[in-house]
Amino acid sequence: MPYYIGDVIQQEQKLIARTPEKFRETGVDVRIDSRAEAVDPQTGEVRLADGTKLSYDTLVLATGTTPLTPGIPGESLAGVFTLKKFTDALRIKAWLAEVPCRRAIIIGAGFIGMEMAEALRRRSIETTVYNRGTLPVGRWDPEFGKIILEELQRQGVAFVTGVDAQAIEEGKGHRLGMITNRGVDEADLVLLAVGIRPDVALARQMGLPLGKSGAIGVNFSQRTARENVYAVGDCAESFHRVSRRWVNIPLGDIANKQGRIAGVNIGGGAMIFPGIVGAQSFKVFDLEVAATGLSEREALAAGFAPAAVLIWGKAIAGSMPGNSELGLKLIADRATGRLLGAQAVGKAGAVSRINTLSAALWAGLSLDDAGWLDLAYAPPFSGSWDPIHIAAQKLRREL
Amino acid sequence: MPYYIGDVIQQEQKLIARTPEKFRETGVDVRIDSRAEAVDPQTGEVRLADGTKLSYDTLVLATGTTPLTPGIPGESLAGVFTLKKFTDALRIKAWLAEVPCRRAIIIGAGFIGMEMAEALRRRSIETTVYNRGTLPVGRWDPEFGKIILEELQRQGVAFVTGVDAQAIEEGKGHRLGMITNRGVDEADLVLLAVGIRPDVALARQMGLPLGKSGAIGVNFSQRTARENVYAVGDCAESFHRVSRRWVNIPLGDIANKQGRIAGVNIGGGAMIFPGIVGAQSFKVFDLEVAATGLSEREALAAGFAPAAVLIWGKAIAGSMPGNSELGLKLIADRATGRLLGAQAVGKAGAVSRINTLSAALWAGLSLDDAGWLDLAYAPPFSGSWDPIHIAAQKLRREL
Repeated sequence: MPYYIGDVIQQEQKLIARTPEKFRETGVDVRIDSRAEAVDPQTGEVRLADGTKLSYDTLVLATGTTPLTPGIPGESLAGVFTLKKFTDALRIKAWLAEVPCRRAIIIGAGFIGMEMAEALRRRSIETTVYNRGTLPVGRWDPEFGKIILEELQRQGVAFVTGVDAQAIEEGKGHRLGMITNRGVDEADLVLLAVGIRPDVALARQMGLPLGKSGAIGVNFSQRTARENVYAVGDCAESFHRVSRRWVNIPLGDIANKQGRIAGVNIGGGAMIFPGIVGAQSFKVFDLEVAATGLSEREALAAGFAPAAVLIWGKAIAGSMPGNSELGLKLIADRATGRLLGAQAVGKAGAVSRINTLSAALWAGLSLDDAGWLDLAYAPPFSGSWDPIHIAAQKLRREL
Repeated sequence: MPYYIGDVIQQEQKLIARTPEKFRETGVDVRIDSRAEAVDPQTGEVRLADGTKLSYDTLVLATGTTPLTPGIPGESLAGVFTLKKFTDALRIKAWLAEVPCRRAIIIGAGFIGMEMAEALRRRSIETTVYNRGTLPVGRWDPEFGKIILEELQRQGVAFVTGVDAQAIEEGKGHRLGMITNRGVDEADLVLLAVGIRPDVALARQMGLPLGKSGAIGVNFSQRTARENVYAVGDCAESFHRVSRRWVNIPLGDIANKQGRIAGVNIGGGAMIFPGIVGAQSFKVFDLEVAATGLSEREALAAGFAPAAVLIWGKAIAGSMPGNSELGLKLIADRATGRLLGAQAVGKAGAVSRINTLSAALWAGLSLDDAGWLDLAYAPPFSGSWDPIHIAAQKLRREL
């Protein structure tokens, strides 16, 4: 499928420009390219960067996250990007359309680093991922990290470990030079994908309490400590149903849900956000990578005594053509047998298993439940013993 | 992938023949082609068809099901089959290898009828399904039945409705003639796929109580009314966690689980079978078809006040290539908001959603839970609002 980059960018920019107009019909005043600089919760006023003051009865903070950067010289050079907002993606697309981009460097191997490695390789751009640790996506078990690393290498992505980024400068053969403890490398695009933090500048300036996670503290109605101020999405905390703690897991589906909850409550309804279990996934080339619940480290921190098992099974029945390996890790509490978390990696079926286990975590099920769950068995979709059953029964025996 | 039917059959028959030998090494006496004709529970003896008597301390009944037939003249003609056992499949394969089979007739449009329609079409055999009702797989909503019918027709399977089978006789242009109220048709193979019933002949002869379903009554340890007699699989009942009733749902994964439970208990362990939620699925050509929990009729029979919603959503995020429509029906109790059942049909993602909802049913979750479940969102795998969320919230509003 060919990409017509120029057209796409123009269309997307038109779409953004038309947003205020589209909302005006519904009575909503949407301002783009406007920056809220300060809020006075006493008078109920928001001050914009251009000096305009807007008064409010109810305020919703949906300030999202700010991408972290390594804090090294040269981060503001043309061709150096972070990727957080829609407009960041447009800027990257515009750069790729403008510059003959033959080589790209990605600093960091989290979700964004992995997804962008695939996106850049699909454009036949030589891509290198520089990572501090030895394996990508450190939240997953090292055995899965190795599988993901092999997939990257199979798809022609170079992976450099033990990297400490030091500076970015003008390049010679390419647009940019990347200086690290591992030497000097050149590329036409550098993506800084080392993480994000909740953007709580306005909340802090308003004196709103933040949670331990650093994100804005809210209750189950998405209200902050101030009755008429709500916070939703990546800048706010969520209640984790497994750890029973308030956490910050910045993901789009959680933000969507919290936005709806706040909207209903502001509109006079009464609705609570029942929390999360930490379900997450990404695709990297031909691999599905997914996780839910707590990692072993998170389980320990929450006061559990975690035990874990990692098995390799088949995505569908062993006898069927087109089968593939599925890795599944389960984490449970040694004391109670309660299921605490799961991770899965495979060419197919990983997200499906993690979603089933997310429902199990939501309900607080145990390994005894997970080992005997009634699933919709047919050979094209699973074995009669699903990897979920096999892993749960194995871990149950080991407790 | 070419099929070498003769070889496959020979290999499979060798496999069967070697079974007793393989088990002998482990001290287990496996007898094939042996029919248990009677059991004397007083003396603890099984009498085989050849007169041999075997004594037992513990007996396991795993007699499975018997296929139903319409009970019409000609059912025993060569080329007329039912499909229940592995050896039935071998007989059908042998027939296809022996006869130039150009046309096949399938009586019945349940799981077996659908799966065999696909298998026969894949061998380029002209296939007609004759069905009593107007749509295939009556357990699914008629809107889904129509989608399945369209898929059959798209794949060149003829579907004749309102059929009452009357007789099978020798054919003229083909091996067999099929006489129904809709006229006479000819084919080289006729498959009778009108249903199955639990095979409880031995249990009845032993005086064991049967459940209301007609299958053998068992407790959570798979014990029958006799302390040293167990029953497992298609011939036995299972506890349905949603209806809280004992039912007979003859499926391979349930049979596997019950066999393991009985084995552990016979071996001196203590393990209970925690029951089922009615999860089931089949593939028909390019469609995944799945269901779990109760249908509206079953919900009514179990004393609930069912309400239902059926939505069409996307299997993955709307913006992604390779997307497909996913139909999802949810059934809930009007009085309590408790989730009671679900059905799904689509080219992809149907079984995955039904498995997630099966875990929800297992735990007794409500629509309020299902509408906000934390699932592993990423655009290649779902929208940020999954069809599960959309359907559950819609049905919740309608209660």
